[in-house]
Amino acid sequence: MAHIETKHFLASEIDIDIGKNIVIMNEVDARELGLGPNTRVRLIKGDKTRGAFIALTKTMVPQGKILVSHDVAVDLRLGKEDTIGVKPVPVPPSFIGLQKRLHGQRLGQDEMYTLIKDVVDGILSEAEIAAFLTSQIYYELSEDELNALIKAMVEIGSKIEFEDTVYDEHSIGGVPGNSKVALIAVPTISSAGLLIPKTSSRAITSPAGTADTMEVLARVDLTPDEIKEVARKVRATLAWGGKLNLAPADDIFVNIERKLSIDPWHQMVASILAKKVAMGVDNLVVDIPVGRKAKVKDLKTADQLAGLFIRQAARLGMGIRVAITFGGQPIGRTAGPALEAMEALKAMIERRGSKSLIEKALSIAGLVIELSGKVSPGQGVEVARSIFESGKTYEKFKQIIEAQGGNPDIKHDDLPIGSHTYTIEAPIEGAVTHIDNAAITAIARAAGAPFDKGAGVYLHAKIGYRVNRGDPLMTIYSSSSVRLQEALNIATRYSPILVEGMLIKILP
Amino acid sequence: MAHIETKHFLASEIDIDIGKNIVIMNEVDARELGLGPNTRVRLIKGDKTRGAFIALTKTMVPQGKILVSHDVAVDLRLGKEDTIGVKPVPVPPSFIGLQKRLHGQRLGQDEMYTLIKDVVDGILSEAEIAAFLTSQIYYELSEDELNALIKAMVEIGSKIEFEDTVYDEHSIGGVPGNSKVALIAVPTISSAGLLIPKTSSRAITSPAGTADTMEVLARVDLTPDEIKEVARKVRATLAWGGKLNLAPADDIFVNIERKLSIDPWHQMVASILAKKVAMGVDNLVVDIPVGRKAKVKDLKTADQLAGLFIRQAARLGMGIRVAITFGGQPIGRTAGPALEAMEALKAMIERRGSKSLIEKALSIAGLVIELSGKVSPGQGVEVARSIFESGKTYEKFKQIIEAQGGNPDIKHDDLPIGSHTYTIEAPIEGAVTHIDNAAITAIARAAGAPFDKGAGVYLHAKIGYRVNRGDPLMTIYSSSSVRLQEALNIATRYSPILVEGMLIKILP
Repeated sequence: MAHIETKHFLASEIDIDIGKNIVIMNEVDARELGLGPNTRVRLIKGDKTRGAFIALTKTMVPQGKILVSHDVAVDLRLGKEDTIGVKPVPVPPSFIGLQKRLHGQRLGQDEMYTLIKDVVDGILSEAEIAAFLTSQIYYELSEDELNALIKAMVEIGSKIEFEDTVYDEHSIGGVPGNSKVALIAVPTISSAGLLIPKTSSRAITSPAGTADTMEVLARVDLTPDEIKEVARKVRATLAWGGKLNLAPADDIFVNIERKLSIDPWHQMVASILAKKVAMGVDNLVVDIPVGRKAKVKDLKTADQLAGLFIRQAARLGMGIRVAITFGGQPIGRTAGPALEAMEALKAMIERRGSKSLIEKALSIAGLVIELSGKVSPGQGVEVARSIFESGKTYEKFKQIIEAQGGNPDIKHDDLPIGSHTYTIEAPIEGAVTHIDNAAITAIARAAGAPFDKGAGVYLHAKIGYRVNRGDPLMTIYSSSSVRLQEALNIATRYSPILVEGMLIKILP
Repeated sequence: MAHIETKHFLASEIDIDIGKNIVIMNEVDARELGLGPNTRVRLIKGDKTRGAFIALTKTMVPQGKILVSHDVAVDLRLGKEDTIGVKPVPVPPSFIGLQKRLHGQRLGQDEMYTLIKDVVDGILSEAEIAAFLTSQIYYELSEDELNALIKAMVEIGSKIEFEDTVYDEHSIGGVPGNSKVALIAVPTISSAGLLIPKTSSRAITSPAGTADTMEVLARVDLTPDEIKEVARKVRATLAWGGKLNLAPADDIFVNIERKLSIDPWHQMVASILAKKVAMGVDNLVVDIPVGRKAKVKDLKTADQLAGLFIRQAARLGMGIRVAITFGGQPIGRTAGPALEAMEALKAMIERRGSKSLIEKALSIAGLVIELSGKVSPGQGVEVARSIFESGKTYEKFKQIIEAQGGNPDIKHDDLPIGSHTYTIEAPIEGAVTHIDNAAITAIARAAGAPFDKGAGVYLHAKIGYRVNRGDPLMTIYSSSSVRLQEALNIATRYSPILVEGMLIKILP
């Protein structure tokens, strides 16, 4: 409440990364400013400002000087002999908004903006962000709040603009093997004459994100200018969105959601739509996989989520179609970056492949093509199929690889797969009745995916296949024998693939 | 899910305090262990273990070595050339329990125990603790969960045992000037022949806690052995509970509640009762002040809270009475450690003083005395009054001061009060109709209380007093002219004391 002064300190960078902005200060200086350990301050240099948290020391830095962590130094463009102003922030600007929500009131547009600004500025601590996200579990965002959240997330971040109408497709994920779908869908859509500058994320909890998989074949860490250049040249990108500063609040939210293992729906919708708006997307197809071990368990829930996407997209003036797809087992036969890149590349070169992969990619592509109005509803998938079967999808994909700095002539057999392998065989004769998405994901990640590009899982059989005893069910790949063993431990603990014979049970 | 190895590092302490346990590790070592910035690990040395979070560096520490923050070094008894085992903890033991609560299920006794253990061990991050506390706002603890929480908070901490029956009194706080009530109540209760080893907290958001106020007159940072010794000698203590490790989860919860400005009831009840159980309290009087700017706004709410205390105390086998008291204005005339100590001491020496102070202290003391069964219900306050008026309260208080290392002959005029003062005068003739607790608290804290012992507020008039224009309403004290000015800024912004004349309004 009192007047709070800004005090200036000679600042240098310190090589320490604790996952948040810190400023190390002599405890005598801190006491004068009334600052304890982990109290919140605003760091100011010229017109730039960042939130940070205080670390106290008696010896690491003398009075009058401070040490700041790397991100702070970069954001504030810290040079030698520069001073930084340190201003205590006992009460963050978003305090009142957060309090309202924690006491059962709705946030208005300005309050949501202030909240997101504080998140991105590093003014809010993990505890406060966790409280905001947790509040959503019990007290869902209203559609007005969600709309305000999306707009604020877009506003506080960068945007990329294109001259032509922008199309895109996005899966909410949760099914292993899904990352490769976009590798086929995007060049198919582009071949239909549409502009699709797709950016995607790396894996958070899955074996591979589309960005991880594409990175096996080409650069994905494009700058905004490079994205515009590639889009201008080949009218499609398969890039990583991580460094583009699109809706940057999202990364911070995702990090904490992951820690708490919560995934509030409205926050997910905001995350997806905000990034699309920031990329100037005019027409979008959203894929919601449904399955026992997918993010969405049943059709009724999928319908509700689809409704949320559709109403919010309408408020944003974005054309949208939602595809509810079968998520009851992995897509295609592979999970893991290089294995998935290999499967997608092989399918495009040979113009055939796993039905679940090809059908899904072409259905999604078809819906996007229909959004353009160039084909009648229901005809999109056939248009997509003829593009795919004509080899145009592969031609376009090669152009994208080349434009993103990769080798367009690379073949699937050239891709480096983990050299340590183990194949699990069918214990009995019977039919595959169930494949557990969560177990496949855990195995592929234990084997090293997505960081170990060659790690992952190849499925020899899928649901409904008949197998004989001893037939291969799945092969695990890893670049490390230790990690292969860890993956195997998980595979034996769970039953990732269930084979059932005709004889279910014998009574006494 | 995979087997996780513990790796050993040569460890030294680093002089940095960021408010949580950190371990600084070379990023090459961290990568090998699969650890990123701010990931959770368990540090192990011999039979001791602490949670900590990873900070990465390229240069501050070479491979094979780590730097740990002070608290870790102390807790693990780190010596020179010692090694510490670092074990990644991707999923904390309490993960499942926290997930249950975040998905609308109740925690069982074991799950609550595991949660509190992880809180105290430093295994949970602020985000996770914030999620647990936020969940309580929307989804209150059940009485079974509350009981489990209290037991777990007691279990994971130290206990102090006494041979005689233990009495205590506790206010939930929220009203300025309340810290001095215990200074009169405790020696009165002890003079009635009861054992009352009271421990209390320092101020968190108020101008003074009982520990801050008592510290003006004697040492309060007693060790468990000293508390037992003082209690044996004079059968009463007025000590600080902060370093006794009683229900240590509480400090961690309070820290995050404060950051979020939330105060879930059940958590407050758990905090109070857990500390009492840890101190072996058999009979307790709880004071719930009610008032527009107190923690509890109305009688109905106070009744509900009282019910919670009574039912939980019964489950713990603790005798309890709850006093609902008037919290519509500050207690007595002072707020701030030295000013309150002065007011209480003067009242005991002169055997009279502000009615709100004396009546409250003797009523509380009377209820405690009634719990002993030595006097009939309704007679306690008269017994307390005769003790107070006979001078026995003051005699006992002198004994407590002396036993806690203070000067028993100190007089109220000897206490050092802030030398910078400003007196606010009545702007018109009229009656005091309202005193704003929150504004008084903010003024006293801006003036420097509780850290500046001599800072605070003296009220010349209270609600119902008639004043003439120019009469003094309140005097602000501070040891710093800058802080006095800050306090004045707040006093002019709010209207801490409202004087209203007979003429309310003139129509045209």
